[in-house]
Amino acid sequence: MWGAIEHLGRDGRTRGYLRDAWSPADLELRRWFGQEAARRGLDLREDRNGNLWAWWGDPSVRPGVVTGSHLDSVRQGGAFDGPLGVVSAFAALDLLRARDLRPARPLGIACFSDEEGARFGVPCVGSRLLTGILDPDRARALTDDEGDSLAEVLRGAGRDPGALGRDEETLRHVGVFVELHVEQGKDLVHRDAPVGVASAIWPHGRWRFDFHGQANHAGTTRLADRDDPMLPFARTVLHARQAAERGGVVATFGRTRVSPNNANAVPGLVSAWLDARGGDEDAVRTLVAELTEFSGAEVTVESWTPVVDFDAVLRERVAAAAGGAPVLPTGAGHDAGILASAGVPSAMVFVRNPTGISHSPDEHAETADCHTGVAVLAAVLEDLCAS
Amino acid sequence: MWGAIEHLGRDGRTRGYLRDAWSPADLELRRWFGQEAARRGLDLREDRNGNLWAWWGDPSVRPGVVTGSHLDSVRQGGAFDGPLGVVSAFAALDLLRARDLRPARPLGIACFSDEEGARFGVPCVGSRLLTGILDPDRARALTDDEGDSLAEVLRGAGRDPGALGRDEETLRHVGVFVELHVEQGKDLVHRDAPVGVASAIWPHGRWRFDFHGQANHAGTTRLADRDDPMLPFARTVLHARQAAERGGVVATFGRTRVSPNNANAVPGLVSAWLDARGGDEDAVRTLVAELTEFSGAEVTVESWTPVVDFDAVLRERVAAAAGGAPVLPTGAGHDAGILASAGVPSAMVFVRNPTGISHSPDEHAETADCHTGVAVLAAVLEDLCAS
Repeated sequence: MWGAIEHLGRDGRTRGYLRDAWSPADLELRRWFGQEAARRGLDLREDRNGNLWAWWGDPSVRPGVVTGSHLDSVRQGGAFDGPLGVVSAFAALDLLRARDLRPARPLGIACFSDEEGARFGVPCVGSRLLTGILDPDRARALTDDEGDSLAEVLRGAGRDPGALGRDEETLRHVGVFVELHVEQGKDLVHRDAPVGVASAIWPHGRWRFDFHGQANHAGTTRLADRDDPMLPFARTVLHARQAAERGGVVATFGRTRVSPNNANAVPGLVSAWLDARGGDEDAVRTLVAELTEFSGAEVTVESWTPVVDFDAVLRERVAAAAGGAPVLPTGAGHDAGILASAGVPSAMVFVRNPTGISHSPDEHAETADCHTGVAVLAAVLEDLCAS
Repeated sequence: MWGAIEHLGRDGRTRGYLRDAWSPADLELRRWFGQEAARRGLDLREDRNGNLWAWWGDPSVRPGVVTGSHLDSVRQGGAFDGPLGVVSAFAALDLLRARDLRPARPLGIACFSDEEGARFGVPCVGSRLLTGILDPDRARALTDDEGDSLAEVLRGAGRDPGALGRDEETLRHVGVFVELHVEQGKDLVHRDAPVGVASAIWPHGRWRFDFHGQANHAGTTRLADRDDPMLPFARTVLHARQAAERGGVVATFGRTRVSPNNANAVPGLVSAWLDARGGDEDAVRTLVAELTEFSGAEVTVESWTPVVDFDAVLRERVAAAAGGAPVLPTGAGHDAGILASAGVPSAMVFVRNPTGISHSPDEHAETADCHTGVAVLAAVLEDLCAS
């Protein structure tokens, strides 16, 4: 399966992936998902929010056990973040069938739409819409770098943007959700374990800082006459690092949009996205308030996810089925976290990442560890589907 | 004429122009130039470097008097920077013909290719190639934000990138060049004059600063484990402002490219373009050397133009024909400066800009001043063509 998708959306120069939601690469990956489902005789459905579901058994009779992840990527991302969970889901199902398992409950494989938010700025759009955490009007109005709204992009992809929103029927089908994902740190390396289970997701959020100035000519405008927004942006970047160190949290300005972005023009607007997370929710909120005050920028909350503690009973059951895998927290947001915060019993299985590097072409997982991940996922699904 | 082009490449939201070299909008503007030339029975030629020339009379018999400017824009630029000089050139020729003038020398109207460098980073590509100041191999290898090289883009536009380079034949046709341009400061406002004549162009250049780091996940990578290039970039922005104030020059970081530019990833690379200019060449060089040292970045010279003093005799003649217009220096680079530095007698006429704002949708010139500009240009051309 890996071979069928590893070239899709890959930048030939950097080897990084460009799998923006609803881009040609993403649509191709969605087609691939449909083909894998058809090959196994699974019942393929796309819900009102663009999430894909491949069912073995009928979840309208009884809520099912669902596993899966997402297929979109951050820009210049790695091969594993997302696809590993989807490919492992199909592989685990194949393992169960090879053992002639007949699950007592329906088994579903999910592919959530636009998990990374690389294009429209808000992560986990598919699962946030499904659970009602993201307002559909706000979602439709989100724009990409070209100024195209999500509504326009969905329409262009043959979807109905008017259908977005909380989807009770689809949610009723999900009795429990287990997401397998490549680890995005080195905890499992330190613990010498190929797989682990998530205890919690740190509270985290994303804020857009708009620094307004006056666009003007870079040669003929005297320094004293300038209103150059690059300067307060630069001061805020440096202040964010200091404040994060003080607060024991992490803060990142990893995305900027400069307008007009001409070498020979003072910018009129610098927009920069702050990503802030930490074990302590108050510390994250304090950092954002301090930076908002310091920056003088117009600040918009793009997303905020309070701490997510995964269902303790489920977590222990998954850890046991995984052969006593270690339990660890994570600073990364996931669709499983969105579902958990909306009351769906959810769990996560992490596969070891030798360098801890993620959101980069250097992201990696050893093949042996990936196979262990599939075996563990199959064991977990077998346990959860048993009755 | 203005009505025929004012909508081309205009962003409906911002009213700013997006007329990148060789973009569909630029190609449309080139077609418009050809139509205006044909309407007047002028002989249209495109030289090997993509510059357009519309001739009244045959410049192979005797070198001509040329006026004109460019039609491309900075991103989100104004309506006047470039097009005012081309439209005024056609209008001045119409005025001369209405007066039944028969020029003793050929009269040419030029439209230079890619003056702003908005797409490939290097300004005045057309005139620099024509004069041999820009190496054609270097030009062909320039890439835009999509990673497409100038060579590929030219081929896509049906041009031959192999033909780029110093063009003796075309240069021989240009006896003298006069460029009319909207002023990009407020000198003429302060002098209460609708038009002025350029004395000199400040030495100026453009340098790309590449800050290298390690792309990684913004949630799971500890601060101490990060190699985040946004931090040295921010320090360099602030340092540049201080150093420019100290050195009595101007320095601008107006363009950046962040990779991968994901809100949830520490960047792996921040590229930022420094534009630096000043009346004193040594002060500009000192600033760039100091910033190179301070930044720790990999620094590439993208362009450098030493001070250009326009031909004094020609300048006085133009100022006299312009009714005693004031003479002033400028911090902005122009094709006229490139031609002058290559030994072509050149001059510039500026039209008053009430706010001084340029490279912005707010750029403006009053209609009455534009008409004065056309009348002055016609008088200058009449004088220069008289014998």
